Amino acid sequence: MAASSAADWRPLDAESTLYVELPTGRVVIELAPGFAPLHVANIKTLARAGYFNGLAVIREQDNYVAQWGDAEHRHPLPRGIGKVAPEFDSPLPPHLSFTSLPDGDVYAPEVGFSDGFPAARSAALHRVWLAHCYGMVGVGRDLDVDSGSGAEMYVVIGHAPRHLDRNVALVGRVLKGMELLSSLPRGSAEMGFYTKQESALPIKSIRVAADVPAAERSHLEVMRTDTATFAALVESRRNRPEDFFKVPAGRIDLCNVPIPVREQSIH
Amino acid sequence: MAASSAADWRPLDAESTLYVELPTGRVVIELAPGFAPLHVANIKTLARAGYFNGLAVIREQDNYVAQWGDAEHRHPLPRGIGKVAPEFDSPLPPHLSFTSLPDGDVYAPEVGFSDGFPAARSAALHRVWLAHCYGMVGVGRDLDVDSGSGAEMYVVIGHAPRHLDRNVALVGRVLKGMELLSSLPRGSAEMGFYTKQESALPIKSIRVAADVPAAERSHLEVMRTDTATFAALVESRRNRPEDFFKVPAGRIDLCNVPIPVREQSIH
Repeated sequence: MAASSAADWRPLDAESTLYVELPTGRVVIELAPGFAPLHVANIKTLARAGYFNGLAVIREQDNYVAQWGDAEHRHPLPRGIGKVAPEFDSPLPPHLSFTSLPDGDVYAPEVGFSDGFPAARSAALHRVWLAHCYGMVGVGRDLDVDSGSGAEMYVVIGHAPRHLDRNVALVGRVLKGMELLSSLPRGSAEMGFYTKQESALPIKSIRVAADVPAAERSHLEVMRTDTATFAALVESRRNRPEDFFKVPAGRIDLCNVPIPVREQSIH
Repeated sequence: MAASSAADWRPLDAESTLYVELPTGRVVIELAPGFAPLHVANIKTLARAGYFNGLAVIREQDNYVAQWGDAEHRHPLPRGIGKVAPEFDSPLPPHLSFTSLPDGDVYAPEVGFSDGFPAARSAALHRVWLAHCYGMVGVGRDLDVDSGSGAEMYVVIGHAPRHLDRNVALVGRVLKGMELLSSLPRGSAEMGFYTKQESALPIKSIRVAADVPAAERSHLEVMRTDTATFAALVESRRNRPEDFFKVPAGRIDLCNVPIPVREQSIH
């Protein structure tokens, strides 16, 4: 990290960044239009219509997900928002680069990073997909594969539920403010939904960063995952040179690799 | 679960069960004397001396651990509590049975369940060890391997930090009340420790269940992990027959297998 250069970091695209404003602070989400363009477009339309403003975090299931949306159907969906074709995976060869990890994976033949997100791919299936690691944001749906509009979103707050991979559209990752969503009281109804007696945290607003006045924007940058610096970070997490570790694993699981985020330095 | 019989469940040994009493409720921990007898003995001595009573949860690091102990060295260690030989793994062949999972693992050559806990083993190393899955409880230590007395304990509240395997003594698993530890505000100091300005949740007491009057005990039972019923549960989690799953993974990661716990039925 200390040895990284400016070229190892990338700024965020304000058109693909969401700010979730909670009473407790701001959550910053980087969207993944490269993987789920239709869902991302829907979410931006919803945000720009003010759809999420005044909704709440309605579900907090321990070791699984926090979810926000309109449980009581108070907000009609804006015009043009309806069913979206499933974007659970994408065809190979990918239009995006893929940096592989060396240690294998229980769920997929190959895992690594693509466009800055944890991802998996299969040459046999000719598919690539985002992986349900901690902090990844997905679109809730009903039983039909095209039933997730983006009006309900969830974020992984526990051990990676990788069985959801290829079954749900992942649309991005929380870069900042994760603890505001992971530390909420767990809901006591089935699947962690809050009961009417429990106080769901209100969402003041969800906005596309590009729509937010410059003075109010967060200025984050993310470490590029296709660089020698990131490869060195992965190696150091695999081999743990710190004195504490007596038996370094020498291996690493996809979802244990941190993708560093920092406040943008002033140039 | 519904098809399970009484023989598929086991009661807890009150001598190997801890009750952590928080202002918000009780956390029940099953200890693992089969894997860490010296550490478990120390922890029971500490509990019986009232050592933990009035201490606090001092660290809450997002996607990592909650830790309790005596950050301010207010309580002297009871007589007889000192350094403990490392119990990070045990020799093979194990004295305990091992039920293997079929899908491999990033960190170990073989994973599964032993004595009801998630575990890993290596024939080449002739060792077996507990695995850092969500809810597993470990003993904090300093840099020396024999520096963990049991006076500081932590529980995993995020994606399994399996790189800690074989580097720390795991001593048990939270069976109930996990959400009381996982939903606390994250600490803002380094490694998630609370600052003096942040309110650490007090621990009213930690007691060995055997010392608690019968009327005040929790009555839990745990599904046995060496039964056909548990094997069927694993299969159902691998293949997800529920309608929601369009592409069942057909595989499962050690730390995604739930070990069911329920209130003891009255016989």
